[in-house]
Amino acid sequence: MKLVIAIIQDEDANILTDRLTEEKYGVTKLATTGGFLKSGNTTLIIGVAKEKVNEVIDIIKDECSTRKQIVTSPTPTVGTTGIFVPYPIEVTVGGATIFVVDVDQFLKY
Amino acid sequence: MKLVIAIIQDEDANILTDRLTEEKYGVTKLATTGGFLKSGNTTLIIGVAKEKVNEVIDIIKDECSTRKQIVTSPTPTVGTTGIFVPYPIEVTVGGATIFVVDVDQFLKY
Amino acid sequence: MKLVIAIIQDEDANILTDRLTEEKYGVTKLATTGGFLKSGNTTLIIGVAKEKVNEVIDIIKDECSTRKQIVTSPTPTVGTTGIFVPYPIEVTVGGATIFVVDVDQFLKY
Ligand code: NI
Ligand code: NI
Ligand code: NI
Repeated sequence: MKLVIAIIQDEDANILTDRLTEEKYGVTKLATTGGFLKSGNTTLIIGVAKEKVNEVIDIIKDECSTRKQIVTSPTPTVGTTGIFVPYPIEVTVGGATIFVVDVDQFLKY
Repeated sequence: MKLVIAIIQDEDANILTDRLTEEKYGVTKLATTGGFLKSGNTTLIIGVAKEKVNEVIDIIKDECSTRKQIVTSPTPTVGTTGIFVPYPIEVTVGGATIFVVDVDQFLKY
Repeated sequence: MKLVIAIIQDEDANILTDRLTEEKYGVTKLATTGGFLKSGNTTLIIGVAKEKVNEVIDIIKDECSTRKQIVTSPTPTVGTTGIFVPYPIEVTVGGATIFVVDVDQFLKY
């Protein structure tokens, strides 16, 4: 038995937990406050049989892939006309940090 | 030293943490959001000497036993008389998922 | 790779996470509810290379040292004059509980 601890972005949390649940993995979502570097992350802990660890990692990679996203800058700059114009910027979202830890003893009842 | 990670139902959390504290175990309660399968669960982490792990597991089993509970259905059905009548349903509450993890190094100061 | 799990007081959390981030450690802050013994604690998980564990522990000790603090008692007692007078009391704040756990597999993408 292994414990997979995955730190992912909030916006990927629901899709990932739904997918893991469909595939019969037991997932617990921890409230993660104030990721200061990447704000808005979620920590999942997933108990998983040793031989299923790679499958779980593949699912996390699939659902939490890093990708570029165009967002509108939250603080509009003043354009040459003197009017505030929001402008689009490209940000990287998604990604995951995964720790796999060995489990001495596992009980569920 | 071992780390016991216990995922239990919210309603058992206070009784269990009180009991563990009385018996001098150090417990930390993590806010667990949106257990989607079992909504409303709490994750406890308990640092415990190797030879005390079974005692802690026994306490968790004692305080978080699975049991049947009669609840009134939240969405009343329409009775034959045309009146909405809430009806009692039996649900299983309690239970725990427990992971025991080996600790390399433990410090408290 | 090791996982350092540190339970510290809320008031030390920002300074510690800032310091660890400056020194390029990846920190995740978990919301910890209702520490019943020490109310208001925070749990940090820090993924760290084996040879850096002692450095991280030193940083935690430095930023979360136990120290005495004079606080005004929250429930003022009635003085001899019959007037409620707040009085200063000395409390111990700070400190940390640290678990270091071995990591089987570590991924970041
Ligand atoms: Ni997908
Ligand atoms: Ni009992
Ligand atoms: Ni300092």
